[in-house]
Amino acid sequence: MMEAKKKITFDDIAKYTNFSKTTISRYFNNPDSLAPESQRIISDALEKLDYKENKVARILANGQTEFIGIIVPEFYHRFFSEVLNQILSTYETYGYKFLVFVGNQNEESERRYIQELLSYQIEGMIVLSHTLSSKELSRLQLPMVTIEREDRYVCSVNTDNYTGGRQAAALLAEHGCDILLHINSPTDPRIPAYGRITGFQDYCQEHGLRHEVLLRDVDRSHERDQAILQNVIHVLEEQYQGQRKGLFLSNDTLANTFLNLLFRKYGQLPDDYLIMGFDNAPTSRESIIPISTVGQQVDQLAYEAVRLVVDQINARKEGKPLHGKKPVHRIISPVLIPRATTEGVVREN
Amino acid sequence: MMEAKKKITFDDIAKYTNFSKTTISRYFNNPDSLAPESQRIISDALEKLDYKENKVARILANGQTEFIGIIVPEFYHRFFSEVLNQILSTYETYGYKFLVFVGNQNEESERRYIQELLSYQIEGMIVLSHTLSSKELSRLQLPMVTIEREDRYVCSVNTDNYTGGRQAAALLAEHGCDILLHINSPTDPRIPAYGRITGFQDYCQEHGLRHEVLLRDVDRSHERDQAILQNVIHVLEEQYQGQRKGLFLSNDTLANTFLNLLFRKYGQLPDDYLIMGFDNAPTSRESIIPISTVGQQVDQLAYEAVRLVVDQINARKEGKPLHGKKPVHRIISPVLIPRATTEGVVREN
Repeated sequence: MMEAKKKITFDDIAKYTNFSKTTISRYFNNPDSLAPESQRIISDALEKLDYKENKVARILANGQTEFIGIIVPEFYHRFFSEVLNQILSTYETYGYKFLVFVGNQNEESERRYIQELLSYQIEGMIVLSHTLSSKELSRLQLPMVTIEREDRYVCSVNTDNYTGGRQAAALLAEHGCDILLHINSPTDPRIPAYGRITGFQDYCQEHGLRHEVLLRDVDRSHERDQAILQNVIHVLEEQYQGQRKGLFLSNDTLANTFLNLLFRKYGQLPDDYLIMGFDNAPTSRESIIPISTVGQQVDQLAYEAVRLVVDQINARKEGKPLHGKKPVHRIISPVLIPRATTEGVVREN
Repeated sequence: MMEAKKKITFDDIAKYTNFSKTTISRYFNNPDSLAPESQRIISDALEKLDYKENKVARILANGQTEFIGIIVPEFYHRFFSEVLNQILSTYETYGYKFLVFVGNQNEESERRYIQELLSYQIEGMIVLSHTLSSKELSRLQLPMVTIEREDRYVCSVNTDNYTGGRQAAALLAEHGCDILLHINSPTDPRIPAYGRITGFQDYCQEHGLRHEVLLRDVDRSHERDQAILQNVIHVLEEQYQGQRKGLFLSNDTLANTFLNLLFRKYGQLPDDYLIMGFDNAPTSRESIIPISTVGQQVDQLAYEAVRLVVDQINARKEGKPLHGKKPVHRIISPVLIPRATTEGVVREN
């Protein structure tokens, strides 16, 4: 049980233990500079006095806020709330606290948020939004990690999207599709997710598979995506009538929308359609039938991101440069997860 | 563009303006105690020197961190990430910054998080998790608001769940069901969501409608919920064969799972089933067919929660008690959203 109590100060602890205030202060900022016996006496006193630490005062003494700032772009895609969840959970391991902002795709807001974070002496930053360039972020000279966004000038942790794209194509090919299709939004080649497109294309080309990449302006809202994908289905049914179509959509939310449109039309997923998503978001399991997907290991992405920020924070404390010659980019393997939407009979190609 | 610069101190500003450091400090903490002309001179100097505010130093001067702590129980239900999103967005209105923790239903962790938050001198707290009693929370003597949880001893903002339960029953009744069913987990009567059960029951009793409340141990994982609801369907089809069944599930995630089980079995939603969820979570729109639901106005819940915390913070600054005689409980109206899962023909009862 917790109660609001009179605040215990360093003065009170000094009086109680007969140590000087300087000694008490050293106990908090550099305990090993004191004899073990003195440490024990002070530690006992803190317990008896029910001392509540004042981190703000401590920050002024040693400059360490233990704050990491996070900028999330939005919460429409569950990927972001999953990553945030996992990042927040690292508190148990690393003890860092997180100040969180939502960017909403607005450059000026994000710059203001960053100034706000800096004014609170954050020790590092994790950026998931893609509004500000990594060049601009790198000028902050702050321990920094981005996740799944343009990262040329800063450290980052990303999924191996290229391998993911290849895995998706390979799984569809294994089930003997006549045509492989990838649906994505027009993607900047500097963004890690671009690898989903090139991985898919390279695999198809290397294996002489008939394929097509459809770039559509998706991912803005569910209603819009429905209209766009409805139109894609209309075109596919004219163009590839009677042929076995293997569809790889750029994320599970889109794959779910696509699957629902077909299911509503046919009362089931027709035999001539195979569907794959990307992310392994909860949507892919909770859909009308479970959707095959390329899973991002969100727990690892988040954990490695925090670890990489903390490494930089510690290096800085030791007076080392932020990172050696150039930014570190960690890559997390994707995991292929075959489910019901690709369970067609395996055929010879 | 942002760059890391040499830190400008109060000393630098004092030298530049020929004011004393005390005057500079007063400018930041109580600007109106200075003549307008002096304020202008200092303000110009800050701009010329490109002064970056150090909020940590400022906190020590005036004791105001502008931090609000948030404890979210989990991110499995999208309701929580939606609420968090909306709370974070109030930064633009109120300027408060949010330190976020995920409780994961662990009492001891939550107590530790709270101690950590207190050590950072948070000015207030918003609690969405339901692990610690409101009695325990109230002992912190901190500006505090809970959302949709037991709230006897603290201020809160909740949806009018009772009215929501009535609305759900009324919509199902309007479509002439032979039997109305409500599926929920066993719920503590002190939790606001309990109103969904009593609202449903009262409406049915008042209108002489045949009804049943099925309490099942749902909401732990998707796989478990599927198995439980599969069993419910099995029992319903024996017990109410050929009768028109109106189902009100306690949230949209469950309603989506229930709908999917039926759709998979029949290739469509059979005529003798009507389905309603609760929350208006994205799931309810992105499902195989759009699910009728009782919408929580998440933006209002979040906004009112922040406003109620800020009111308490301001009252405290003026030396007023936290709230008058007893905690304030604000109620947000639910919004009935009829969609495809209740579109059956309206019949006479």
